[in-house]
Amino acid sequence: MTSNISRYDQKLEHILRTAAQIFAEKSYHSTSMRDIARATGVSLAGLYHYCKSKEELLFLIQDHCFGRVRERLEERIKGVEDPFEKLHIFIDNHLSFFAANMAEMKVLSHEAESLAGDLHQHVATKKEKYAKLARKILREIQEQQAVATRVDLTVATYALFGMMNWIYNWYDPSGKLKVSQLVDQITRLFVSGFVGGPSRNLIPNARNSGKQSVNVWTSKSIN
Amino acid sequence: MTSNISRYDQKLEHILRTAAQIFAEKSYHSTSMRDIARATGVSLAGLYHYCKSKEELLFLIQDHCFGRVRERLEERIKGVEDPFEKLHIFIDNHLSFFAANMAEMKVLSHEAESLAGDLHQHVATKKEKYAKLARKILREIQEQQAVATRVDLTVATYALFGMMNWIYNWYDPSGKLKVSQLVDQITRLFVSGFVGGPSRNLIPNARNSGKQSVNVWTSKSIN
Repeated sequence: MTSNISRYDQKLEHILRTAAQIFAEKSYHSTSMRDIARATGVSLAGLYHYCKSKEELLFLIQDHCFGRVRERLEERIKGVEDPFEKLHIFIDNHLSFFAANMAEMKVLSHEAESLAGDLHQHVATKKEKYAKLARKILREIQEQQAVATRVDLTVATYALFGMMNWIYNWYDPSGKLKVSQLVDQITRLFVSGFVGGPSRNLIPNARNSGKQSVNVWTSKSIN
Repeated sequence: MTSNISRYDQKLEHILRTAAQIFAEKSYHSTSMRDIARATGVSLAGLYHYCKSKEELLFLIQDHCFGRVRERLEERIKGVEDPFEKLHIFIDNHLSFFAANMAEMKVLSHEAESLAGDLHQHVATKKEKYAKLARKILREIQEQQAVATRVDLTVATYALFGMMNWIYNWYDPSGKLKVSQLVDQITRLFVSGFVGGPSRNLIPNARNSGKQSVNVWTSKSIN
């Protein structure tokens, strides 16, 4: 899987994944570079060879996650016309990605404001683009439906993200509820709520089903 | 409003509200008692007169919020039979309470794991009781409906909390979308999704509408 990734990238990935776990566990602010060095088994000097600062680590985690989840979505959604199918792919892509990267998901949620200046702006722009993709799909569904009373698109978009992102508080990917079942349940709940009627038969096996690796760190080189 | 609250309680409320704002802004771990003393205008020695530790402050905030939101719910729901009406009251109660206490909401979400031992257990038990109330209402709705494919109750309960609790990331209570409109939108989205069909005419003016104070700190004495 990682054969085409250089040793440098592999090491950086190991550092980023470990840093995400520690940030998720004890928060960004109360984690030191020394904590990360200790947990990764890399010397402090070695750690600074891979990143200049703790802030850069947080940036790389956030930037990479939003980049990867969107990139993966765009690949899967290419050529799909039906907005319901697009939405199902969106939910499947988001949940399967973050169920495999729960520590990163928590860091994205809790540490959104921990970056400042340009780094913050860069990540915020990526996040916004991603959210706009969801909103666009929801608008397409509304336009296709002749629904008298529509749910506000802003509320609907954030309600969808809330339903999905909250999973880091309760969902255990190794438990008895499989990710594919979680996706089906959330899709059914959201879609029939959104269109105000029973959900259409919702593509039980979405095209381009997300069977490729969803590990944020290992499916692609970081640089 | 606070005429029956002692000066001691008023001061403690001021400290707790300020502490919640600072925790929400820069996280519990990176806040010091000195920061809280400075922001409240109370001396450090004075601050320790009201609470023994930063941990006790966090405990009081969490314990009080879960206590108040549930107490308020139980008052409003008393004597209501229809589970749809109960659910509407539940959503209205939760959203109006936390829209008025967004800093506290963020602290409940982000710092759930920052307490340890008995304090953590005490709050976790209160939180669980509150979540069970939501789950019970959802079960009543399912029992009343003859729906072939039911959404899993655990997924539905956490999806509902996710939709509601996510508001601290995007919702501005002083913006153009009023809390009552937010409640209606979230109720409509969730209910028709949950029953898999158009939502019933959902009590536009819920009985016992939450017109009483929703400020977590000032409607009641803390002790």
